[in-house]
Amino acid sequence: MIENKPFQTIVTHLLKMRPQILLFGDSITEQSFRTGGWGASLADTYSRKADVLVRGYGGYNTRWALFLLQHLFPLGAVKPPAATTIFFGANDAALLGRTSERQHVPVEEYKENIRRIVNHLKECSSTMLVVLIAPPPVDEEGRMKFARSMYGDKAMKLPERTNEMAGVYANQCVELAKEMGIRSINLWSKMQETEGWGKKYLSDGLHLTPEGNGVVFQEVIRVFNEAWLSAAEMPYDFPHHSEIDGKNPEKAFQQKCL
Amino acid sequence: MIENKPFQTIVTHLLKMRPQILLFGDSITEQSFRTGGWGASLADTYSRKADVLVRGYGGYNTRWALFLLQHLFPLGAVKPPAATTIFFGANDAALLGRTSERQHVPVEEYKENIRRIVNHLKECSSTMLVVLIAPPPVDEEGRMKFARSMYGDKAMKLPERTNEMAGVYANQCVELAKEMGIRSINLWSKMQETEGWGKKYLSDGLHLTPEGNGVVFQEVIRVFNEAWLSAAEMPYDFPHHSEIDGKNPEKAFQQKCL
Repeated sequence: MIENKPFQTIVTHLLKMRPQILLFGDSITEQSFRTGGWGASLADTYSRKADVLVRGYGGYNTRWALFLLQHLFPLGAVKPPAATTIFFGANDAALLGRTSERQHVPVEEYKENIRRIVNHLKECSSTMLVVLIAPPPVDEEGRMKFARSMYGDKAMKLPERTNEMAGVYANQCVELAKEMGIRSINLWSKMQETEGWGKKYLSDGLHLTPEGNGVVFQEVIRVFNEAWLSAAEMPYDFPHHSEIDGKNPEKAFQQKCL
Repeated sequence: MIENKPFQTIVTHLLKMRPQILLFGDSITEQSFRTGGWGASLADTYSRKADVLVRGYGGYNTRWALFLLQHLFPLGAVKPPAATTIFFGANDAALLGRTSERQHVPVEEYKENIRRIVNHLKECSSTMLVVLIAPPPVDEEGRMKFARSMYGDKAMKLPERTNEMAGVYANQCVELAKEMGIRSINLWSKMQETEGWGKKYLSDGLHLTPEGNGVVFQEVIRVFNEAWLSAAEMPYDFPHHSEIDGKNPEKAFQQKCL
């Protein structure tokens, strides 16, 4: 049928597109392509194998993230992402009665919102690799110092986030992953295994230094490798240049064009 | 018609996808998501506005790049890239009779190959912003030093690339852009405006240091801004978090969801 020809051409193009890895989260995801960022390192690792797309929304909590779901992950997409990281909680855990309370989401609702996000992704694609990343720890002293450097005497007198509360959200995130049988990274715990984590991994008590980005990158790679998304085991899209015969280049491309 | 429904749904999804910026080139493009890389910086700049995809193929010359065209830029795609950078020449300019001669492509053929790439992209999408990037200069001393560090006494005795020859290819690249009425970046000239460019911008006499990546990033941004692809003028995909009313978040999302 003539009518079906463009349809099939489009579907064929889409199916031939390389896999996509989507990074969904708040500012820690949005900033992941800055110097030393974990998103950029993933894009470098999966170069010629998968595309890494950043969907980070600074300041967002899970309640607001729900509004984006149908736009970022439309149901019925021919080629949904092969893998998605979900990295929220740092803003949900902002304390009531402090300067960032408009971002606060109660921990029970946080857990349910993440569950809704995961369920939507699974409806979008039952084979999608979904990885939850719990929020990082909070260095309260670093937060206060940052606030004073920004606002001087007008800075908050009490931290708007505490490490203890971030831990409550991190635990619920990891707990939910267990309940749903999906993979997770307990960044809150992992970072605190290292002496001096507050200054080493956090630039302002909350966001990541290049070293902190390195921890997220290593953890994501570890989980991807444990699943089926190991870059080392994925084929190159086209021949490595050393496989190309300078006098007869066609041969290599006939053999290997994904 | 029922048959057309999925077709239209798919096309609608595709048209709603954010614009793509594709980086097509050799190793200098493939490595552009390493720490301080120009590709990662572009992805950061266009976050929430456009996706930056790396299509870099280490060791490739323009002759081999032609084999990839129909795969990377299929004709009839519903949503071709909004912009593409074409960044070849460093390998084409490898000298005959030296250690990298299998990568050599005569300069006349190099120019014609780039012309074929541009023509294919224009056939793919007449509105695509196509930017040619000429190869960087070569620091012959840096190349020799790198070879000795890798191969010791077995290293090449004569450089496999010269700065003079890289300049010949860069000139042809810029010349072609003028002929075709498209934009170009003369990286070879630009980098040599700075004292000590060899060590400052090149890590092994050919590939880029973080500072060298910074030059490419600034030049690409300058050209994109001069065209119609200024990140500052592109809308955010969803509301900035400060626009969201904590008590009535729906409102912001009803007003602004691209």
